[in-house]
Amino acid sequence: MQELSLNKIKISLDAMGGDNAPRVVIEGASEAKTRYPDITYTFFGDRKKILPIIKSYNNLIDCECIHTLKFVKGNDKPSNIIRRGGNTSMALAIKAVRDKEAHALVSAGNTGALMAFSKLFLKTMSGISRPAIAACFPTQTGEVCMLDLGANLECDKNNLIQFAIMGQAFANIVMGIKKPRVSLLNVGEEEIKGLDHIKEASDLLFQLKNIINYNGFIEGDKITDGSSDVVVADGFTGNVALKTAEGTANFLTNTLKNSFNKSFMSKLGYIFAKKALESFRVHMDPRKYNGAVFLGLNGIAVKSHGGTDSYGFANAIGVAYDMVKYEFLNELMQKTLKSTKYLEKKL
Amino acid sequence: MQELSLNKIKISLDAMGGDNAPRVVIEGASEAKTRYPDITYTFFGDRKKILPIIKSYNNLIDCECIHTLKFVKGNDKPSNIIRRGGNTSMALAIKAVRDKEAHALVSAGNTGALMAFSKLFLKTMSGISRPAIAACFPTQTGEVCMLDLGANLECDKNNLIQFAIMGQAFANIVMGIKKPRVSLLNVGEEEIKGLDHIKEASDLLFQLKNIINYNGFIEGDKITDGSSDVVVADGFTGNVALKTAEGTANFLTNTLKNSFNKSFMSKLGYIFAKKALESFRVHMDPRKYNGAVFLGLNGIAVKSHGGTDSYGFANAIGVAYDMVKYEFLNELMQKTLKSTKYLEKKL
Repeated sequence: MQELSLNKIKISLDAMGGDNAPRVVIEGASEAKTRYPDITYTFFGDRKKILPIIKSYNNLIDCECIHTLKFVKGNDKPSNIIRRGGNTSMALAIKAVRDKEAHALVSAGNTGALMAFSKLFLKTMSGISRPAIAACFPTQTGEVCMLDLGANLECDKNNLIQFAIMGQAFANIVMGIKKPRVSLLNVGEEEIKGLDHIKEASDLLFQLKNIINYNGFIEGDKITDGSSDVVVADGFTGNVALKTAEGTANFLTNTLKNSFNKSFMSKLGYIFAKKALESFRVHMDPRKYNGAVFLGLNGIAVKSHGGTDSYGFANAIGVAYDMVKYEFLNELMQKTLKSTKYLEKKL
Repeated sequence: MQELSLNKIKISLDAMGGDNAPRVVIEGASEAKTRYPDITYTFFGDRKKILPIIKSYNNLIDCECIHTLKFVKGNDKPSNIIRRGGNTSMALAIKAVRDKEAHALVSAGNTGALMAFSKLFLKTMSGISRPAIAACFPTQTGEVCMLDLGANLECDKNNLIQFAIMGQAFANIVMGIKKPRVSLLNVGEEEIKGLDHIKEASDLLFQLKNIINYNGFIEGDKITDGSSDVVVADGFTGNVALKTAEGTANFLTNTLKNSFNKSFMSKLGYIFAKKALESFRVHMDPRKYNGAVFLGLNGIAVKSHGGTDSYGFANAIGVAYDMVKYEFLNELMQKTLKSTKYLEKKL
């Protein structure tokens, strides 16, 4: 085991994860290295498939490749994942972080498997019973961090409170928001509405005003209006909200395109409106917001969308890079521990 | 009690429900009557507030007004609603349907109260244990019907199956789709993913192929892509998905507007692109899709968005009008009863 320094940021990549692996992973790695030349990578996966692609990128010559023929499939069942186990490209990439051979790992593979292996090998932070998946999205005024996005389909009130604590720490440290406003996703803003465990979590969060800047309930239509910096939900609801937002954005963008294709005048209009539409497209590009962080682990694990391209994958690497470079994990662990200790005393 | 004929479609209106009641209700009623001259209305609410507004609309002179000073507030607690009880404008509007004095009712008031009173006075259809809120939304290829949108926050597998049966009947009769494709909202498309009661409902729906054209799970990003005609969810998830889609649409539309305001060239672009943007706006106008139907009751109750304007409220009246005019309720009841009877035998 070598000692890790921050002169070189070492990232483990699950080269076999995602719809177009290993091509997109390697292309994305090269793009990210152009932006952050102090990265080096270890690719995990089938050497025969990886090496020929790596060779075509000049800036990847200092990278390692650890060979394995085992990998987790996108639709693998949990039982299969456990059987294929520790020697899959995904598991090896995680173990490299556990063994301090890499600062962080990025995978575009099966989310459930990535969470299971991450919990197994990296273990959960002190005070946190379950890790959560968190990601940032654009809003009217900036960005919002939402969690959990699918790691824990069902949650009790304690899970939700722990997510609130981690989400607040994340928004504070990574997004640079001094006093992040934290909300719980619900079907109404009134205290009497919603599911019991969400109402109980809300009551407790109001009592924790010394450690949490809790804003109360938020409805789905307010997630992107800039009224909250952190939106907390169980993994089922968070995932449905995230996917529905993605689908709505796609639908609207396609409808807009069709509107511009309807007549000669609107095609002409498109030419004049191109710059505005381009700025819209760039601002809303989901690839820009690719890279979800697994919060609550003793290590940095970032999940890329499985269907993204190299630009999107490079952005997921960028998220991991920032987490390492600015030493977010330690600060996050300290802030989280302080809050969960307070919580234990208070409740 | 008088006998109702279809020569005059009689609609009860809760004149005191919604953010800008009674003004928006009355304006909307007048707009709808311009479209459907064979409607007559009974307005329920504060006569002093209602009559002066009605007088300014020539086409409303044949309408009745039943006076009551009691009404349900938007944020009323269930206990308050029950105490204020049967003489609120909302309850009286529902009772008029029960007593065959009106064909249908429309309210923009408190959803929970509307559902509670509707169940109490109209009773649930045979074979249906809980009514659901259903509404139609635009998709890439047409429309999708989604239910439940918030009547039942928690559902078991039987509720979900009953929603699927009602949703299929609704899509068949009201949307005119011969063989509607029905899906269950979940966090993955694979059979192994999701919450237990959703997986159980899915297994049962696959066994019911004689009565349900069940397509399997659907994720949030596919709701608007045209791959399903009916999307079934519990009320909590359905409501979060609906609201998140609304919020995303608002956010994108605002971002697009801002893009066109950035520079002189993009402002010029806006002028040329106006027609295309206008067609986009009209196609996506949420007021067009206003009017959610309470499915599973022995009567027609339609819920308008509380914050809509007169155009939106007129569309909610249009939904009620169509339900009555084309005698959808009887057909829906027969189709539902046939399916639930088959279901009882099969399971």
